[in-house]
Amino acid sequence: MQDSRKHILLMDGPDNKGLIYHVTGILFRHNLNIIHNDEYVSPSGQFFMRTEFEGDFDNDALLAELKTTLPDPGITFRLNPKRKKNIVVLVTKEHHCLGELLIRYAFDELDATILAVVSNYNSLQPLVSKFGIPFHYVSHEGKTREEHEEAILRTLSIYEPEYLVLAKYMRVLTPNFVNQFPNRIINIHHSFLPAFIGANPYRQAYERGVKIIGATAHFVNNDLDEGPIIAQDVTEVNHRHTASDMATEGKDVEKIVLSQALKLVFNDRVFISGNRAIVL
Amino acid sequence: MQDSRKHILLMDGPDNKGLIYHVTGILFRHNLNIIHNDEYVSPSGQFFMRTEFEGDFDNDALLAELKTTLPDPGITFRLNPKRKKNIVVLVTKEHHCLGELLIRYAFDELDATILAVVSNYNSLQPLVSKFGIPFHYVSHEGKTREEHEEAILRTLSIYEPEYLVLAKYMRVLTPNFVNQFPNRIINIHHSFLPAFIGANPYRQAYERGVKIIGATAHFVNNDLDEGPIIAQDVTEVNHRHTASDMATEGKDVEKIVLSQALKLVFNDRVFISGNRAIVL
Amino acid sequence: MQDSRKHILLMDGPDNKGLIYHVTGILFRHNLNIIHNDEYVSPSGQFFMRTEFEGDFDNDALLAELKTTLPDPGITFRLNPKRKKNIVVLVTKEHHCLGELLIRYAFDELDATILAVVSNYNSLQPLVSKFGIPFHYVSHEGKTREEHEEAILRTLSIYEPEYLVLAKYMRVLTPNFVNQFPNRIINIHHSFLPAFIGANPYRQAYERGVKIIGATAHFVNNDLDEGPIIAQDVTEVNHRHTASDMATEGKDVEKIVLSQALKLVFNDRVFISGNRAIVL
Amino acid sequence: MQDSRKHILLMDGPDNKGLIYHVTGILFRHNLNIIHNDEYVSPSGQFFMRTEFEGDFDNDALLAELKTTLPDPGITFRLNPKRKKNIVVLVTKEHHCLGELLIRYAFDELDATILAVVSNYNSLQPLVSKFGIPFHYVSHEGKTREEHEEAILRTLSIYEPEYLVLAKYMRVLTPNFVNQFPNRIINIHHSFLPAFIGANPYRQAYERGVKIIGATAHFVNNDLDEGPIIAQDVTEVNHRHTASDMATEGKDVEKIVLSQALKLVFNDRVFISGNRAIVL
Repeated sequence: MQDSRKHILLMDGPDNKGLIYHVTGILFRHNLNIIHNDEYVSPSGQFFMRTEFEGDFDNDALLAELKTTLPDPGITFRLNPKRKKNIVVLVTKEHHCLGELLIRYAFDELDATILAVVSNYNSLQPLVSKFGIPFHYVSHEGKTREEHEEAILRTLSIYEPEYLVLAKYMRVLTPNFVNQFPNRIINIHHSFLPAFIGANPYRQAYERGVKIIGATAHFVNNDLDEGPIIAQDVTEVNHRHTASDMATEGKDVEKIVLSQALKLVFNDRVFISGNRAIVL
Repeated sequence: MQDSRKHILLMDGPDNKGLIYHVTGILFRHNLNIIHNDEYVSPSGQFFMRTEFEGDFDNDALLAELKTTLPDPGITFRLNPKRKKNIVVLVTKEHHCLGELLIRYAFDELDATILAVVSNYNSLQPLVSKFGIPFHYVSHEGKTREEHEEAILRTLSIYEPEYLVLAKYMRVLTPNFVNQFPNRIINIHHSFLPAFIGANPYRQAYERGVKIIGATAHFVNNDLDEGPIIAQDVTEVNHRHTASDMATEGKDVEKIVLSQALKLVFNDRVFISGNRAIVL
Repeated sequence: MQDSRKHILLMDGPDNKGLIYHVTGILFRHNLNIIHNDEYVSPSGQFFMRTEFEGDFDNDALLAELKTTLPDPGITFRLNPKRKKNIVVLVTKEHHCLGELLIRYAFDELDATILAVVSNYNSLQPLVSKFGIPFHYVSHEGKTREEHEEAILRTLSIYEPEYLVLAKYMRVLTPNFVNQFPNRIINIHHSFLPAFIGANPYRQAYERGVKIIGATAHFVNNDLDEGPIIAQDVTEVNHRHTASDMATEGKDVEKIVLSQALKLVFNDRVFISGNRAIVL
Repeated sequence: MQDSRKHILLMDGPDNKGLIYHVTGILFRHNLNIIHNDEYVSPSGQFFMRTEFEGDFDNDALLAELKTTLPDPGITFRLNPKRKKNIVVLVTKEHHCLGELLIRYAFDELDATILAVVSNYNSLQPLVSKFGIPFHYVSHEGKTREEHEEAILRTLSIYEPEYLVLAKYMRVLTPNFVNQFPNRIINIHHSFLPAFIGANPYRQAYERGVKIIGATAHFVNNDLDEGPIIAQDVTEVNHRHTASDMATEGKDVEKIVLSQALKLVFNDRVFISGNRAIVL
């Protein structure tokens, strides 16, 4: 996906007449070619636009012209080159999401570079080491939650990742930790949120007798399982599925949903608006 | 579906060796032909079997022989001829589920006879009258909840329905009402339960930013939106769907899920086990 | 959906720098407010844009300015007020798609006015008459295909419909007939095209042992079952489904897919590009 | 899944009264406990039954008693211990299905032992070697189809696999090869068969403008892409997907469908009846 001539302009702010016209006009005058353009106006009047374009230009000059032409301080512009993101993956004991990410990464399909894998258990080290990626075992045993998070943060500071991917990391993160990565932590939850928040969702699903189970990839904020939803998918079950069978079926959904969500985020296609994710 | 020679035997009780053998042996000796047989044993050791068979036999003698051969008092046998069920449909103002049932009924696809439609509004009377079915307008205005339910019960007493179908009936029923129709009230809820219990689920879904919405057909018990789930289905949405758009999309799911659930119930395919529906 | 101040501008032509800029600029200068804008550039370099906007303007003047600003003769502009379309529905004997359209129409959910229903059998007349819509029984008995189509065309000439909806009309139309309604005939085919083209798709599906069946709504052109696909959906089946069971399950998919496709077409959201439908 | 006391009895033959009764009676008298029992009678009167049971017994004596009690020569009995199957995987260049199988195998989730991977290219050797599984590069270059297949057969003869899994093996197999593994070769085809048989199905799908793409796992017989279908699944696409985008999306479907199909086959849940797979 790396291409030095391709960029993505992300804009959001209060809706107003002429926004598309003004932005596309500036790109036109800089002789830049729009490849994809997508807009959305929320019911409350917030305007979002993602413009993927191609060509040679001066980054600072372009941003300056955008801000001069649309001086509303409520408008945010972000101008990103199209490139891979740097990530660290956090896991506990389950391998299915991690395995999916490793295989994709090994074949350059992840739109990201996995800098390292961090886990509070060491059982997935053999899998990670097959792919030549650093594995950090940071046990939570004998540590307070704060001490454990401090240890993880020290490890992360080596890599300075742009995103943290919780690929079945089964510990709740404190607000202090989350606040250091605002809108930069992506989690896969093993239920169709907001159904079955919290622990043992497949057990809950079995007991409730649902006919469909699912998985949810979402940004992590300070309320457990409550951050903006990026992607969801489901699969059918029936009364013959035990909670354990549901978990087995659900894993296939979890790993695909996580991969799809990461692709959207790493391609700069996701805006966050309150507790909702706008995917353009 | 009416066929005087076809019957359905429903059996449930504690699992034990030889249950299938003993029951199928009795049918074999009565020269009855099994068309479909389906069994399920729950993780807690409860055995469920649905046997659809064909032939001539003495109903009482067959049941007596079953009970003699399998004298465990925990075992329940039900022997139903294959025939349409008699139902009354309750609605409020929305037409989509009712319209679906009326069209199916008009073309003999419902596996049931709609004896009457009861509503707390009169706005759907014109639709119902097109199909020549009695419509009872039982307003809740100026009545307590108990008085209103009494009025409905008086109307129902004319028809003695086997099942009540809540086809978007938007009032909560009291335990007193529900208890008069144990496992005989089927509701369609406009969310993928247990997500978005209660009022305005599409509004809740919009605010939570989900990427999939759904509908749930379930038996009604005394806990709102908590009875055994018979059928569920979902459809994809995105950030562009307002709560109102979700409601529009959701209606197509609701009416199909309700129809599917009714087909299962009316064909004697649903066992209730605690809060779970076993569909054989 | 009627709103005299809302319009939809449909534009397509060879891609070029500045197209979005020029069009949105003209709307901006006319003080028109863009509600939705969506564009697509095909791999072969064709540009498509649908712009929904609101405000008061002179129709001819706006179109003239668009053509003056973008004089490329390969560019097509269409400017439609947002309003219901006038349609005639053609059916044979099956009721499920027709019933769906009638119920939606009765409750103003179709985005269209059903001017009449035409059938080569009279069995659906009672259903149609419930809804107060003219029903024309045009039998094909004793007529050549050409004579039958002539009779239908005479009936259609009374109504001058903008679109013909084949809601399970089971006769093949001749090129002569199709050519009189270019891109204005929408059919629902009871398979997941291009699988099972032609007669008895559910029989074919049963014999092939597929695990999923579907339905396809498409524009009709001169090659049977080959026109641009507007919408498709599927449902799961298994070895227990006979061809007849598949037909029963499939009907629910057919009617919903047809309704979804009609909604897209009647809201001016579908461009035709060769044999592909672009849905914006 | 290995458990020396669990067995699976597979029976098929002409339907007749008392079949379930007689078989379950024999198991009852041998003091064996039925865990799951599932039957199916085809429209043409063929009876299929899969009985999973637990207990200690003499294999030959049980089979002899079954054949004595039900002497119809048209009836086939197979009695399998519940155990992992031995397989060889054939691939060409694409890694996604192979990667999926390797990860599952590494974590004991495949219900099979991968004895070796064979490929006509060597590009996947590094991936396979990470998992410590023999990789055989058997190039087709400079060989006739028959010579190439002879070379593969020589490699296979080392391992004597029970099943061959074609995990995106892109060469057509000759009848001579296929006949050596009757109902023992499983292929994943990258379309929703029978749509888009043959080469480049995603290119065909793009050109036809379909709104849904899929994948099909099936047994291989002598007609290309025509063997009994075991499992299928689909995913939605739209006009924005190029053929290449469809291929990318489709890969996620392919690998999951293949895994699901293998699980069914390796658990002795699939009967073949003509060109249809019966999954019990």
